[in-house]
Amino acid sequence: MSCPTPAIARDHISLGHGSGGKLSAELMRDLFLPAFRNATLERMDDQAVLDFNHTRIAFTTDSFVVKPLFFPGGDIGSLAVHGTVNDLAMGGAKPLFLSVAFIIEEGFPMYALQRIVDSLGHAASACGVQVVTGDTKVVDKGSGDGVFINTTGLGVVPEGITLSAGGARPGDAVILSGYIGDHGIAIMAEREGLEFDSPVESDSAPLHGLVADMLATTRAIRCLRDPTRGGVSSSLNEIAAQSGVGILLDEQTLPVRDAVRGACEMLGLDPLYVANEGKLLAIVDAAQADRVVEAMHKNPLGREARRIGTVTKSDAGWVRMRTPLGTTRIVDMLAGDQLPRIC
Amino acid sequence: MSCPTPAIARDHISLGHGSGGKLSAELMRDLFLPAFRNATLERMDDQAVLDFNHTRIAFTTDSFVVKPLFFPGGDIGSLAVHGTVNDLAMGGAKPLFLSVAFIIEEGFPMYALQRIVDSLGHAASACGVQVVTGDTKVVDKGSGDGVFINTTGLGVVPEGITLSAGGARPGDAVILSGYIGDHGIAIMAEREGLEFDSPVESDSAPLHGLVADMLATTRAIRCLRDPTRGGVSSSLNEIAAQSGVGILLDEQTLPVRDAVRGACEMLGLDPLYVANEGKLLAIVDAAQADRVVEAMHKNPLGREARRIGTVTKSDAGWVRMRTPLGTTRIVDMLAGDQLPRIC
Repeated sequence: MSCPTPAIARDHISLGHGSGGKLSAELMRDLFLPAFRNATLERMDDQAVLDFNHTRIAFTTDSFVVKPLFFPGGDIGSLAVHGTVNDLAMGGAKPLFLSVAFIIEEGFPMYALQRIVDSLGHAASACGVQVVTGDTKVVDKGSGDGVFINTTGLGVVPEGITLSAGGARPGDAVILSGYIGDHGIAIMAEREGLEFDSPVESDSAPLHGLVADMLATTRAIRCLRDPTRGGVSSSLNEIAAQSGVGILLDEQTLPVRDAVRGACEMLGLDPLYVANEGKLLAIVDAAQADRVVEAMHKNPLGREARRIGTVTKSDAGWVRMRTPLGTTRIVDMLAGDQLPRIC
Repeated sequence: MSCPTPAIARDHISLGHGSGGKLSAELMRDLFLPAFRNATLERMDDQAVLDFNHTRIAFTTDSFVVKPLFFPGGDIGSLAVHGTVNDLAMGGAKPLFLSVAFIIEEGFPMYALQRIVDSLGHAASACGVQVVTGDTKVVDKGSGDGVFINTTGLGVVPEGITLSAGGARPGDAVILSGYIGDHGIAIMAEREGLEFDSPVESDSAPLHGLVADMLATTRAIRCLRDPTRGGVSSSLNEIAAQSGVGILLDEQTLPVRDAVRGACEMLGLDPLYVANEGKLLAIVDAAQADRVVEAMHKNPLGREARRIGTVTKSDAGWVRMRTPLGTTRIVDMLAGDQLPRIC
């Protein structure tokens, strides 16, 4: 049912290895896990949760290589804050501190760097996080591409909260916080010079407030994921694999903007595989799902939240989708390099 | 006494902005500090020390863009561990956890990545630190240069220890742990194809054990720095500036290998500005200096430790050096881009 990876991909790094899909997972399984083996890493969550003297600290890292650096709805600076804040939030943590490391290409205009740094600073302030340590490296012209940014985040996980990709149970509800594919399509449109009647903006936004609202409603939330690279399909496949469950989606419930759907058709993309930077997926005890969705609707970032599927005991490890025609299809992990350098 | 920065350097990023010298300091002062302003960042230490429920956690980040990726005495993988472990150690912290983020250029050979990842894993194990979270991005061919690695570290600072670049006091002794310039010259020799009678190896090594030995001897250690980019001169200039003191070095005490001295003469470099990756500078209460040096001699990484100078009240903010001729010269911060991509 799934395509074998071409042999070439095993000898050299391809763009697909950075896609957040199947090749990324293989790299993790075959290269990183064996070299770094430990229980925290093996949980395969978006963040490590570490116990320091009974304070549980969430720790997560992301490098940003998005192209172009400035795009409708954001830039690499704000994205670098939102991406890492969201990875902390998906562990239920209150984000507190960031490190920021720049790799800048020689000759990069100072005014553009200033704009990126200001945007990063404003985004951090807006999230209530402090940039407390940093690093700057410069590479010779032609050895980089403008600016790459790494942000690494620290936050505190409140007592009693344990969210993990391994926590989904049969019968649980799958909740999505809003329209999918906006970020990926905004980037692609900018890159390819596409024009829409109503321009698509990146959904880049910090989700820790929405998560706090959800956790204030119930503790029966098993797992949170922000479907970035590889989109909704990859996040749900990871949850299905880590939890040893199946996931059944209802295609008719998936919120996709008309412009995004149109662009996807034109570009040959499936919105389920397109990156988001301000959306979350939640696996929630079905009995609490309505209350959680209701709480999400009160937050501007969760206004379009809805239940999109169910966790099943059958078809463990697989994500399936019921189509409007009543048939069911497999929603596999992203296999190639659909959208390189999306974040 | 110091040369003005050329105007072009203010409009565009130059290699010098990543050198750890004067341009790096300007970038920090003019761009990063105003955008991210907070008390922790303003201490300008190699690590932030954060209080979590009375547990003091050291947090530090570094990106590595060293060229070549493999060099005598190490590679980018082991260097990425040692660099970050050392920044934690300079805060007196016991290193515990690392995040690792790779930016890989499309087409990079898998066997070389495997070698780097294995080296990184071994170095981490040897330091007793766990790689608990990570990220991989791939950029298209020509937009990177093989592999860049960011490591961000977490460690715990034992009670009662406060080390900071602002802690030096007049009368304190300046101690150096061993031969300087080995790393920078090993990289340059590899890059330029230089050959020596006795090859120079990078000194890349983790210093947390040496620091623990020093702190077990006395708590009268004010400040520790590992003189990486920008070398001994830049680290001491930072301390002089942050502490509002002068520093007077004795040139005759500076340990430089003959091969390093020869290579520096050939390349027009001053060993005081050349990067080290396994050395530390300590500012210590003069009354305890001999005991600290003695303790360092018992550790293989401190066998050549010695006192190289004194902190003065006069000439605040300046580092000076007494030459063998009895004259005194200013040791300014690195002004240009003497050795790009050294780490």
